[in-house]
This record gives sequence, C-alpha cells and structure tokens, in this order.
Amino acid sequence: MTKLQLETEHKTQMIDITDEVKEAVITSGVKEGIAVVFTQHTTGSVVLFEKADQNLHRDYLKMLKTYVSGQDYSHKGGNAAGHLKSAMTGASVSIPVVDGHPAFGEWQGVFFCEFDGPREERNVIIKVING
Amino acid sequence: MTKLQLETEHKTQMIDITDEVKEAVITSGVKEGIAVVFTQHTTGSVVLFEKADQNLHRDYLKMLKTYVSGQDYSHKGGNAAGHLKSAMTGASVSIPVVDGHPAFGEWQGVFFCEFDGPREERNVIIKVING
Amino acid sequence: MTKLQLETEHKTQMIDITDEVKEAVITSGVKEGIAVVFTQHTTGSVVLFEKADQNLHRDYLKMLKTYVSGQDYSHKGGNAAGHLKSAMTGASVSIPVVDGHPAFGEWQGVFFCEFDGPREERNVIIKVING
Repeated sequence: MTKLQLETEHKTQMIDITDEVKEAVITSGVKEGIAVVFTQHTTGSVVLFEKADQNLHRDYLKMLKTYVSGQDYSHKGGNAAGHLKSAMTGASVSIPVVDGHPAFGEWQGVFFCEFDGPREERNVIIKVING
Repeated sequence: MTKLQLETEHKTQMIDITDEVKEAVITSGVKEGIAVVFTQHTTGSVVLFEKADQNLHRDYLKMLKTYVSGQDYSHKGGNAAGHLKSAMTGASVSIPVVDGHPAFGEWQGVFFCEFDGPREERNVIIKVING
Repeated sequence: MTKLQLETEHKTQMIDITDEVKEAVITSGVKEGIAVVFTQHTTGSVVLFEKADQNLHRDYLKMLKTYVSGQDYSHKGGNAAGHLKSAMTGASVSIPVVDGHPAFGEWQGVFFCEFDGPREERNVIIKVING
C-alpha cells in the first residue's frame, strides 16, 4: 500500500498523480492485477481524466461548479458544494495492471480533485492487487 | 461474500451501510486488500459520502432531482429519473482494506441510495479481495 | 485479461458489452472474485445501466448532453463535451464474481459509452481477479 500526501493551493484544483500511481505499481512488484486509487476525503475525489490540456481541467471544474449551484444548501459550513462535487465524481478508480504497469490510455491520467481547498494535507491511498 | 438485504421507506433515501461493510471486512478475515460494495439494482446506487450530517444527504438528493428534471423521458414506467440518478452515481465503490479494516476517512461512509422506493428488498453485495 | 475492440457508428452511443463480460469471466476460470471493466479512452466510458429499454439509453444520452451544454469551453478541438461526459460517467466499473459468473442484477448490464464517435477502434479491458 502506498499513501500519497498532497498539499493543495486553491479552492478547487486538479492534481496529476499519474506518475505516482505508475511508481506505486512498479514498487508493488505486481505484474498482473488491478490498482485501486482512493481518497479518504469527502470534499475531494479521484478521477480518470485527459492529462494533456489544462484548459480541459478548467472546463471540468467550471462545469462542476455550475452543476452544484442554483440551490440553497441545508448543510452549514460553507462547503456543501465541495461535498456534492466529491460525491458526483467519486472517491476511487480501479485500473487494470498489465505487464507490470497500469494500463492507462495514451491521453489518460489519474487526478486528485480538490473541492474545498487550500489544504495542507490531502491523502490518496494506492492499493495494488495481484490477480 | 456478504449480501445485505435492505428495506427502503421513501421514494428517495440514503441508507448508511458503513458498519455493515466494516463487519463484512472483519468477517472475511482479509487483512490487506480491497472491498467492493455493489448493488444489483438500476434504480439504486452505492456511494461514498459524508456520514455526519443528514442535511447534506438532503442537499445531495435535491441536487440529483434537479439534475434529472427538465426533460421529457422516452422511457415509460415513471421511474426514468431513478434510472438516470442510479447511472450517474454508480452501482459500486472499491475501498482499500488496511490492517483488517476498510480505510475510510474520518467523515466518510458508504451509503445505499434508493431512487425508486419504497421497496421491500434491496440487495447490496460486499466482496472482499485479499492482496 | 480480455481486450474488446469495438467500432462505434454514431457521435454518441451506448454499446451493450454484458455478454462479453460474462464470457470473459467464464474464460478466466475465476469462481469467486471481481471483474474490472475499464476503458482507456477519455471521450468514452464504461457504466452499469438498465439493459432492457433502448428509450432509457436515449434519455441518458440526452441528459448528459444537457448537462455539459450551456458553457463556453476553453478546450479546443470540438470534443470538450465528450471529455466532460466521460469524466462524469467514469472509465471503469467493478462487478463481484460469484459462482463463476458476474453478479449482475436482473435488469443490469455493462455498456461502453461513446461520446466522440464514430470511431473505428475503441478498447475495453476486462480484468478478472480471484479472491
């Protein structure tokens, strides 16, 4: 098991953790199996996303903002929107491991999404299963 | 494999199954691995969500309602909205198992979401994989 | 590991791959475990969905279209909407394997979703893990 500790700098932000996932798979020694990438936070998420274009990340964060807006929240604390974005985008992804590497597509990466930052410490757990 | 049987009481509803998932992991005897929590229904879902504030659950269900409204459905039967909510929120989650316990964050729980209730019997399958 | 190659015919489209997933599980010889169904594309996705009613598929694709519309995209290339739909619906699902078969519900199937077609070759990876 690998645990990443991330510091976020903005209210909402996507952090590319593709290389860290690749490294964790190599370190695990698993040749065939799956890698589960999971965050323990309820105002953050882990998603598979296009990794090449930062503009697309902005489009995504903007869309999510639109999506959770336009309603009054019962939840107090000012971060209801962050919770809803987290729930909609999901806390974990599972990636096949083939020939000792996560089977990412050419344009595909893994990202931690911050929805209630900045935060000094965000955690992501990477668990690689043989099989 | 553990199978939960749930009875739902409302049209839409979130049921906290965090303790049942913890129990299933302990019962499995698995110390390191993953737990997959899965529902067989297409008008329900399984999500990771903040577990402390019931208001936030109301915010979430309200947001989903808004999301699937505002269009005419081709599907007959009156539960098209439930199907769409189910597809958007997902039928399964995967949680790392560390030291014999699911690695939930402090505020994080697992919920079965009902989107076409009430129903006498909803099923959730918990599968714990060693690795 | 099983790799499916799919050809898509429309801009947006759902392709039922339930039978292929069943076949891959049988071929794997795994009796108890999980099946991870994963796509390497960032303008496609893999979802669990109701398999009986084509109208419901239309409702779903229409809802997703509405969801990502109404904003100007920073991403150039004309397929920003496809990327956003892909991110929202997810690149993978995990299904328990019980008694040698994926534990689908009665109405439940697995679908590859095309959001930027038509394409001559779309890939889906099916990885079955024993456990």
